[in-house]
Amino acid sequence: MRSVQRHLLSMRPVRIVPHVSLHAEGSVQVEFGNTHVRITCSVDERVPSHVLGTGSGWVTAEYGMLPRATQERTQREAARGKQSGRTLEIQRLIGRSLRACVDLKALGSRTLTLDCDVIQADGGTRTASITGAYVAMALAMRKMKGDGRLLSMPKLTPLAAVSIGICKGHVLVDLDYVEDSTAEVDMNLVALEGRKLVELQGTAEKGSFSQSTLNDMLEAGFGAIEALIQIQKSILNA
Amino acid sequence: MRSVQRHLLSMRPVRIVPHVSLHAEGSVQVEFGNTHVRITCSVDERVPSHVLGTGSGWVTAEYGMLPRATQERTQREAARGKQSGRTLEIQRLIGRSLRACVDLKALGSRTLTLDCDVIQADGGTRTASITGAYVAMALAMRKMKGDGRLLSMPKLTPLAAVSIGICKGHVLVDLDYVEDSTAEVDMNLVALEGRKLVELQGTAEKGSFSQSTLNDMLEAGFGAIEALIQIQKSILNA
Amino acid sequence: MRSVQRHLLSMRPVRIVPHVSLHAEGSVQVEFGNTHVRITCSVDERVPSHVLGTGSGWVTAEYGMLPRATQERTQREAARGKQSGRTLEIQRLIGRSLRACVDLKALGSRTLTLDCDVIQADGGTRTASITGAYVAMALAMRKMKGDGRLLSMPKLTPLAAVSIGICKGHVLVDLDYVEDSTAEVDMNLVALEGRKLVELQGTAEKGSFSQSTLNDMLEAGFGAIEALIQIQKSILNA
Amino acid sequence: MRSVQRHLLSMRPVRIVPHVSLHAEGSVQVEFGNTHVRITCSVDERVPSHVLGTGSGWVTAEYGMLPRATQERTQREAARGKQSGRTLEIQRLIGRSLRACVDLKALGSRTLTLDCDVIQADGGTRTASITGAYVAMALAMRKMKGDGRLLSMPKLTPLAAVSIGICKGHVLVDLDYVEDSTAEVDMNLVALEGRKLVELQGTAEKGSFSQSTLNDMLEAGFGAIEALIQIQKSILNA
Amino acid sequence: MRSVQRHLLSMRPVRIVPHVSLHAEGSVQVEFGNTHVRITCSVDERVPSHVLGTGSGWVTAEYGMLPRATQERTQREAARGKQSGRTLEIQRLIGRSLRACVDLKALGSRTLTLDCDVIQADGGTRTASITGAYVAMALAMRKMKGDGRLLSMPKLTPLAAVSIGICKGHVLVDLDYVEDSTAEVDMNLVALEGRKLVELQGTAEKGSFSQSTLNDMLEAGFGAIEALIQIQKSILNA
Amino acid sequence: MRSVQRHLLSMRPVRIVPHVSLHAEGSVQVEFGNTHVRITCSVDERVPSHVLGTGSGWVTAEYGMLPRATQERTQREAARGKQSGRTLEIQRLIGRSLRACVDLKALGSRTLTLDCDVIQADGGTRTASITGAYVAMALAMRKMKGDGRLLSMPKLTPLAAVSIGICKGHVLVDLDYVEDSTAEVDMNLVALEGRKLVELQGTAEKGSFSQSTLNDMLEAGFGAIEALIQIQKSILNA
Repeated sequence: MRSVQRHLLSMRPVRIVPHVSLHAEGSVQVEFGNTHVRITCSVDERVPSHVLGTGSGWVTAEYGMLPRATQERTQREAARGKQSGRTLEIQRLIGRSLRACVDLKALGSRTLTLDCDVIQADGGTRTASITGAYVAMALAMRKMKGDGRLLSMPKLTPLAAVSIGICKGHVLVDLDYVEDSTAEVDMNLVALEGRKLVELQGTAEKGSFSQSTLNDMLEAGFGAIEALIQIQKSILNA
Repeated sequence: MRSVQRHLLSMRPVRIVPHVSLHAEGSVQVEFGNTHVRITCSVDERVPSHVLGTGSGWVTAEYGMLPRATQERTQREAARGKQSGRTLEIQRLIGRSLRACVDLKALGSRTLTLDCDVIQADGGTRTASITGAYVAMALAMRKMKGDGRLLSMPKLTPLAAVSIGICKGHVLVDLDYVEDSTAEVDMNLVALEGRKLVELQGTAEKGSFSQSTLNDMLEAGFGAIEALIQIQKSILNA
Repeated sequence: MRSVQRHLLSMRPVRIVPHVSLHAEGSVQVEFGNTHVRITCSVDERVPSHVLGTGSGWVTAEYGMLPRATQERTQREAARGKQSGRTLEIQRLIGRSLRACVDLKALGSRTLTLDCDVIQADGGTRTASITGAYVAMALAMRKMKGDGRLLSMPKLTPLAAVSIGICKGHVLVDLDYVEDSTAEVDMNLVALEGRKLVELQGTAEKGSFSQSTLNDMLEAGFGAIEALIQIQKSILNA
Repeated sequence: MRSVQRHLLSMRPVRIVPHVSLHAEGSVQVEFGNTHVRITCSVDERVPSHVLGTGSGWVTAEYGMLPRATQERTQREAARGKQSGRTLEIQRLIGRSLRACVDLKALGSRTLTLDCDVIQADGGTRTASITGAYVAMALAMRKMKGDGRLLSMPKLTPLAAVSIGICKGHVLVDLDYVEDSTAEVDMNLVALEGRKLVELQGTAEKGSFSQSTLNDMLEAGFGAIEALIQIQKSILNA
Repeated sequence: MRSVQRHLLSMRPVRIVPHVSLHAEGSVQVEFGNTHVRITCSVDERVPSHVLGTGSGWVTAEYGMLPRATQERTQREAARGKQSGRTLEIQRLIGRSLRACVDLKALGSRTLTLDCDVIQADGGTRTASITGAYVAMALAMRKMKGDGRLLSMPKLTPLAAVSIGICKGHVLVDLDYVEDSTAEVDMNLVALEGRKLVELQGTAEKGSFSQSTLNDMLEAGFGAIEALIQIQKSILNA
Repeated sequence: MRSVQRHLLSMRPVRIVPHVSLHAEGSVQVEFGNTHVRITCSVDERVPSHVLGTGSGWVTAEYGMLPRATQERTQREAARGKQSGRTLEIQRLIGRSLRACVDLKALGSRTLTLDCDVIQADGGTRTASITGAYVAMALAMRKMKGDGRLLSMPKLTPLAAVSIGICKGHVLVDLDYVEDSTAEVDMNLVALEGRKLVELQGTAEKGSFSQSTLNDMLEAGFGAIEALIQIQKSILNA
């Protein structure tokens, strides 16, 4: 029934390939079906001014899309001379989400930058980015520990993200581009392990939705997030 | 207990002053306590290219803050040469929300631009903007009807917005700046009359939150939105 | 005869409302008829590099217009990504004028920024800005004195500004937008109390003008400036 | 007494070299002492939108300085990515002034662009630019007449510009950089032949100045402008 | 001897993976050792104004690097708000080179855009880009032929590119980053099949080089280019 | 035969006028026929961060064209808000070339900036710039020696540049604009005295070219460069 063969509450095939970059401290390629995002985690021994002197570290994110990641070619943001509102909104979301799962004090006075670059887009690029960025960040910390830059691993709470939508009245998780374009409600859910909400952004694309629909969507979303966290763990424990 | 004397689930004093602009087709100054936003609704007989030829109209929003609307002076975005990610995110939210409450077909092939300029900021500028913009838009349509530019009023469903937070474990609505800075969870709710969700954005600023907390926050938010819609109606029926 | 009922050499109704901002050290809303400008004076304990180390302070200004301050909506400069030549020219004029009326040495090594934001425009926004900025600056200094940040008030010489034009051969002061659009000569006069010239900018919009016309315009302008200085004093002494 | 040997009311040596450009329809190099400006007048058969359809033509100007035109190297505006407020203010003044001396109707529906590029700066670059641009524009029109693009020469009224200052209480004309930096009052005067004022911009750099001083400055300025107009005529009649 | 085990005149392992993009008309990932570039060829049925009306088509290129493609993270050009001189220089080179191998007339009035995005960098990104872009363009044309958008394949002459350097007096081809950083001479050669030069850019990084050295470098370069063209053919004939 | 009367392998009339700037440490106007470039060499006692602390100096270049240096007026880069790819490419080339002929260690920890501004363009602006910049730099160093800022002259190796092209099968040097527009191959050669290559950039504008043609072009180019170096020496020894 769905454009990729699967149940309404199933994820597309998910793949997280670790260590895809020769240079970065941590890296993955994350794939939710045909959505492919390359993520690197870079460590900088400086911190932005607003945390300077607090002893705390910082985690930030940048997001981009290759011009032909999309069905129609999109203008290159570097050529246009500015990042779109959509780009800025997404990278702020990724940064906030990642900061929620790590003990910034224990990170020490350094900055981790998660670069999430969409190689190919088919819906759900921001949720794939968050889910993959968690793994890239964990790998970077592990490497810092291995290199002696960190004495102990900062506490990390598993975190993942998924999109949920209402299409023709049905709750769907992990919408691809076609589904997303026709959804009546579009929601992005970011949560820690154990059904703990970190970010929730729901938008009625047509009309509005009720609180009971919201609760059905959350139920579906939490299920998908649990599945994603299992995949993250299998990669990190491999 | 709260920085303005009021109950946990009460709004600050709300004021919507209509017709504050000599030039604009519709205008209000909206005040949630010390947060003051000047809103104009401008009519342009052209539409953006993505709706051109569909017969439909369009509603969009721009958001800005005077440099000293804030406690410390903020750099002027026009001088800096670009709008911040926060600004772009807020104006996208306002535009999406306003499009949810109006019949764009009935508007005809024209664009309404809601300029929301924060004169003074004390938390909740985006929710005040949405709540006031609804009234400014209704006034502009009424004027267009009066001038014969519209044959009949397009259907408008009352829409308002409020912020909700968790501070020291308590649910609060309409947070001022001090409350907002210390909240554990920060949520913005946009809804149509009748508890119909249009936008829901919740962020755990510290840690995470449960689905049951979410439902408590929604309950509080819907109450405040009902109160706001009564104020909007009293202005529009005056 | 004039679009607002008044004599050729009369100002429109002038209103200066002090303390309009919760946050700024000094603030006013100044109104010349339908031209309304909100002005804040912000204090920063740093100085620009060209006065650093001289012991002197600095006064600077920024100018903006809300998009629908004008009859037709103007594009937002922050969205366009740069300030227009007109904006830069006006804010340079305001800054220069304000520096002429204050003892920068006595201000100490700090910067005052006058933000002049036009809420509604009907001609004369720059002269209203200068006239109001004088009061906002005086209020800010008084507050600094009250807070102990200044041991004594720096000497301030009353300063105001007015536009003067030639319309159909007649000298007019304080032109509104319609008058300004049709004037043959357009002049802006900034002066200290006692007919002391600080800035004089005259432009022949059609043809040219003689020295004798210039002197008639100055005479008219000095009269209006004296009236404005009386209004400033009544506010500051209230 | 003055840094170049001359009387208080004398110009520096003035030179206007016509036909310095192979490509431009009209061109001069104008020199006021060590201030050298290269000016080209380019003809474009299109007009800006605000005069389109009126049958009228348009005259506009752009101004620039080579980075090492000044004593200390200035950053290149093209590299900085924007023109300074000073640059925009000067080019607006040049354009306005030149439009005052030409019959735009008779020019026909085309645009003349005066590019004024300062090769070497020693004070008075804007007045040299206006004085030279008049000649470059006249030469361009003469060429258009010669080429049959214009049936008859549009009426041109001789126009020139000079700076006037007060230094240690004395009135000086055509200030060089050192004099300009120390002047108490700084004025730029643009006038048509016959003491007809087109633009007058006077600024008290220290303190203020009286109307009687203003009249002394005008007297000195008109004298210098008459001398400049004789030089223009000798070039155009050569 | 070399950082990757190989002869002085040998390429690093070269891999060209076709059809890596779901959306683009043609695409490859090209790898010269650890330098990995993702290339898409997008077809647009419009042409830039300078070929409009000539019946000819156009080929252009854009180049970018992911921020952590490099050993140290590089600032994102989209965030910085402009493309560097290096980026613009490289994309101009790629575009010019690709236009040299295709019959633009036979392409018809359409534009092909080659997006070359460096996923991982280890020297030679521009030569890998050109070599891969040839294949991506050929694949796109084949697809257009298959889809009936082209009646016949435009003539394509095989084209490839390689870097050549002098390190410690020896001629090397296909330098990796470490070799490139220490080379005395650095050259990029773009050639058509049959030793036909299209672009030659040689730079003495330290001192200078003789014509005889140039000829040795060309000899080495032509050899590498022949090898690259065989790899291109094997992919296109697969 | 050629647009300026001369042999295929002859330069246009070359003129290098020294000391054209009152302010700059070194300056020339260089002319290759109708191509005129004004060049200043400015000394700054700071160095860019990548050489800071090495004891070495730095040489850099900026390039610009006056808007009407060209046959048709070109938009001013300062007004457009960015430098074109062509401009950036040329100024990178000039900077690299000039660094090849000077002992940066002996220069001491300071930066020389060569500003090359094209006053009039008729082909070959980059080669004229390099040839003239060598002289401007030598003059600046001589002045620094004279002023005691340098104890001894850093070693300078004569350096010049010329364009070479193939037009209708013939090798030509120093192409003017018309020749350049119709050339089949376009090459720029930068060399030190004694036929030592510093930069070589050859482009097939139509089709391709052989190694034997390349060698013919080099032969012609070296001859022209020798002639240019004689002219440089006669200026510097005058």
